[in-house]
Amino acid sequence: MDAVLRQSKAMCPFLKKTSPATLRSLSTSTSARQASPCGGSMSNLQTIARRCPIMGKALAVQTAKSGKVGLGGVAALGAIRAFSGKASAGKARLHTSPQREARAVEDTLFGRENVPYPQQVKPVRPVQHKAAKFDYEGFYEAELDKKHKDKSYRYFNNINRLAKEFPRAHKDNKNEKVTVWCSNDYLGMGRNPQVLKTMHETLDEYGAGAGGTRNISGHNQHAVGLEATLAKLHATDAALVFTSCYVANDATLATLGSKLPNCVILSDSLNHASMIQGIRHSGAKKLVFKHNDLADLEEKLASLPPDVPKIIAFESVYSMCGSIGPIEGICDLAEKYGALTFLDEVHAVGMYGPHGAGVAEHLDYEAHLAGRPRGTIMDRIDIFTGTLGKAYGCVGGYIAGSTKMVDTIRSLAPGFIFTTSLPPATMAGAKTAIEYQMEHQGDRRLQQLHTRAVKDSLIARDIPVMPNPSHIIPVLVGNAALAKKASDLLLDKHDIYVQSINYPTVPVGQERLRITPTPGHTREFRDHLVESLDSVWNELGIKRTSAWAEQGGFIGVGEPNAQEVEPLWTDAQLGISELVRETKKSGPGPVGVMEALLERETQNKETAKAVSASA
Amino acid sequence: MDAVLRQSKAMCPFLKKTSPATLRSLSTSTSARQASPCGGSMSNLQTIARRCPIMGKALAVQTAKSGKVGLGGVAALGAIRAFSGKASAGKARLHTSPQREARAVEDTLFGRENVPYPQQVKPVRPVQHKAAKFDYEGFYEAELDKKHKDKSYRYFNNINRLAKEFPRAHKDNKNEKVTVWCSNDYLGMGRNPQVLKTMHETLDEYGAGAGGTRNISGHNQHAVGLEATLAKLHATDAALVFTSCYVANDATLATLGSKLPNCVILSDSLNHASMIQGIRHSGAKKLVFKHNDLADLEEKLASLPPDVPKIIAFESVYSMCGSIGPIEGICDLAEKYGALTFLDEVHAVGMYGPHGAGVAEHLDYEAHLAGRPRGTIMDRIDIFTGTLGKAYGCVGGYIAGSTKMVDTIRSLAPGFIFTTSLPPATMAGAKTAIEYQMEHQGDRRLQQLHTRAVKDSLIARDIPVMPNPSHIIPVLVGNAALAKKASDLLLDKHDIYVQSINYPTVPVGQERLRITPTPGHTREFRDHLVESLDSVWNELGIKRTSAWAEQGGFIGVGEPNAQEVEPLWTDAQLGISELVRETKKSGPGPVGVMEALLERETQNKETAKAVSASA
Repeated sequence: MDAVLRQSKAMCPFLKKTSPATLRSLSTSTSARQASPCGGSMSNLQTIARRCPIMGKALAVQTAKSGKVGLGGVAALGAIRAFSGKASAGKARLHTSPQREARAVEDTLFGRENVPYPQQVKPVRPVQHKAAKFDYEGFYEAELDKKHKDKSYRYFNNINRLAKEFPRAHKDNKNEKVTVWCSNDYLGMGRNPQVLKTMHETLDEYGAGAGGTRNISGHNQHAVGLEATLAKLHATDAALVFTSCYVANDATLATLGSKLPNCVILSDSLNHASMIQGIRHSGAKKLVFKHNDLADLEEKLASLPPDVPKIIAFESVYSMCGSIGPIEGICDLAEKYGALTFLDEVHAVGMYGPHGAGVAEHLDYEAHLAGRPRGTIMDRIDIFTGTLGKAYGCVGGYIAGSTKMVDTIRSLAPGFIFTTSLPPATMAGAKTAIEYQMEHQGDRRLQQLHTRAVKDSLIARDIPVMPNPSHIIPVLVGNAALAKKASDLLLDKHDIYVQSINYPTVPVGQERLRITPTPGHTREFRDHLVESLDSVWNELGIKRTSAWAEQGGFIGVGEPNAQEVEPLWTDAQLGISELVRETKKSGPGPVGVMEALLERETQNKETAKAVSASA
Repeated sequence: MDAVLRQSKAMCPFLKKTSPATLRSLSTSTSARQASPCGGSMSNLQTIARRCPIMGKALAVQTAKSGKVGLGGVAALGAIRAFSGKASAGKARLHTSPQREARAVEDTLFGRENVPYPQQVKPVRPVQHKAAKFDYEGFYEAELDKKHKDKSYRYFNNINRLAKEFPRAHKDNKNEKVTVWCSNDYLGMGRNPQVLKTMHETLDEYGAGAGGTRNISGHNQHAVGLEATLAKLHATDAALVFTSCYVANDATLATLGSKLPNCVILSDSLNHASMIQGIRHSGAKKLVFKHNDLADLEEKLASLPPDVPKIIAFESVYSMCGSIGPIEGICDLAEKYGALTFLDEVHAVGMYGPHGAGVAEHLDYEAHLAGRPRGTIMDRIDIFTGTLGKAYGCVGGYIAGSTKMVDTIRSLAPGFIFTTSLPPATMAGAKTAIEYQMEHQGDRRLQQLHTRAVKDSLIARDIPVMPNPSHIIPVLVGNAALAKKASDLLLDKHDIYVQSINYPTVPVGQERLRITPTPGHTREFRDHLVESLDSVWNELGIKRTSAWAEQGGFIGVGEPNAQEVEPLWTDAQLGISELVRETKKSGPGPVGVMEALLERETQNKETAKAVSASA
């Protein structure tokens, strides 16, 4: 409401003359005779406002609840409320009317409004004539009750991933082991010997922590080296490392959106919570375009004046459904309408492209393989954001782009400036991981092959895989309690850990299991997973693809006339075509191709390991 | 502006009937003949608004610039602007009129308003009749130019702190070594052998990264153990670990401030940027009270209705000036007015109290030493926040408090939910560091003794130490360029690294060097520091305490009749009185006491090390 207040002060002779302290005092002081029958009370400011020729009318109309107020009086109430600190009426409810598209926390987590409390939740204390102190513990309890009731309360599973037995982990009891099928350590880099070696050495030489912010004793050769490697990865001039990519997205969008004059941010409807928060924190105007819908995006871009700064914020791989953004089309539109492209490659770095730079790199696979990044789609992205905590197996996030853009964020973003740097060993380990993945294709190709194998097996069992071209395998359950039960049953009975994904991460009714294969998920693990899922689907009576199809299909599952989705990694890029040719000559036939290929990839990987270990 | 829009929609018949899409379209579409002579243009929404009985008047008045608009019309313009995305007029300028009190970034970094650009900075492109696309690179350049011009542009020093030579570090060239005098690794825990041992073992067993968010495969025994240790440290029921304390403060205040109905946050004027941002992100009403001023705080508390939820957000040790918050007095006021206490102990954990729980613990030193936390001042704090990245030598942050409060933040805060967990080795290392400091008093006592020694020596040389009761030694320079020169000269000529602290971290005119002794800064290092500072003060002609005194003093330096500030760690707590008694008997006299004590502490520490290493 600050902006409204500032405007009001600038123009209204009453507000202009009155000090903020007096206004606050007026807004919070009440006289007993002005107590409202609704339980609230009228502040002295509201009393004075009645004398204003415009406000007076608006307030009278509001009191009469006729709803016949013009634009002026309506918004004016906002100004009065801003001073008096009263929550406005007519708020959005939590957890009601979820949208069909997944929009993480978009409509649930701190919007500008407060949730009217205790009007909406049960009152935790009796209403008294002389107001009592606020009951904080009662408030917490009520908030938690809501989460329990709508089944969005989260129970964390204690999972200790074992570096030497990847992808296995132990539960809180060290002897109870499970196979992890939902980690974002997609390539197993968290236990890569080169990464660990670098980290051990750096720990011994430079200690556990950075000891300060980047400006005050926390800047070092590890930060310099990591940022240079990241810039090289994305073929940009510069990069900047943050505590996490949540912070990178939040800080960068908040800074650009607030600093660029009259900036408008166009945001994909499935964007991650960190981007949603960054946009909200920027205070910039936001236009949400339909997920991956270029026509809708263009309509919104065309509605804006050409000279207004615009940012198109989107992702390459959308984590919860595995869809992939139309990067080239968005670059075309950005160019046409003068917008910045802000591409979150969090779930794609390490995983796509000949050097693991992400989907943008993958789209010009041959050019990048040949070391020619100029003129490519990747070259058209203004701002990349990525993580060191998923395919690179460590922790932290970053942005990459032009020197001036990076320097501006470095100089202005509080989320970068006022926080302790990542530890030297983390930065050194991440740098090693990126460099390793720039040089080795084996892990990500094997990951893709395992993904294909799991998807094929599940589809063959009529288990509802949500189709997508990426490495993510979302399996539709469609009910919060059931999804949690399925996850619990897999863990307790089958020693398989797949977390259920519930609201607000996905919309109500779209609850799912999200499976993420890795290079370590060899055939015995995959077979066990598929058998176990089949058993759980039977035991809990979860809907299969054919049942969804009978209802006309749902979010890609069992939909009639659905086009088959081609994986982004082509057969040729994975070396499958080559192998098919070879195996046709020698005879084992197409059925065995995948396994043969998987075996071959595993062998290649072992060889590469041996080579790099001896190097 | 969303709240205004929602209110407007709820009450104005026109807005109510019109879809958001139409409103956006109306607000962004313009007809050519409505181009304004000021270079802007009038949207169709503004045209329609002229027909509204209230808005019409307001707009007419605005156009005439008579300033005679009532409350109603004024705020209504906010609603129109919210749709049309126009920046409002009359914005705060960057870098002008800095306040005397240090308020990190308070008035500079993304407020709700945009900085009017290019009106304020030089235009980067000619104004054209047909608007051109926005020049992003020109914008970045202009932002950076501003930083260069006001000397707030930051140059990072490449400092690589050497674990085995603490407090020494090398610059980008490995052979150029310096002594670090400004790290926040206050106790040298970043190179503590027990911490490093734990980290090495955890790295080998559990790998480099957590592999997921706390909800999805990133929850493990290390998180459980660390949070239990933190709760034990602060004698609370629960704790929650975040990526950093920046995120902990931001996420917790933003969540509570937005969720608690009509919440008001009372914030100390010197609060850290992370709290300022959290409060801003909450959208809650904020009242800033004068630094450490209980009377001002009470006045503000008394102005608020008793039943309105309130949070008093403050720090124990204020990092840039070393002042200490009046915790007990704030607890009294919180109790009287029904407010939550939110205490940031970031610069105090590990450093104060018999177990290193912070200043709140230190205030009841004997009770806590005896293991009786109930009924203490620490017991009256609702929410602690702290860091694992300063005295504990690692990275990360946390909150501690009641089970329900912690569970509410765990369940609702996007900054906690949607980010990768800290790596197992980091959490395990931090847990070891906390436990070590709960058991050993030597490091923090030695740190205090070194701090006293440095302060005494600087004061003896007339070098302007800003007086405070804590472990921080701010040395006033009072000019941005001079502070940077002093820092550069120390580094280049004297091999001493002390970062200069400039605007916006401190206000213009209060630039300083911030010195942080550690247990590793033995006599030779201290003597070298004092000699070097003296030399730099001479070489650059920087004002000494006596010169400030001639001008009547400034922010505590050279102020007449200033009461001597007693250090929080008393002589008795440091064991000085005991030693004085001992040495009086044997004869060396008071001059040698400090050094004798320092020697004794060092010996004690070596003994403790040997004991714990052999255990």
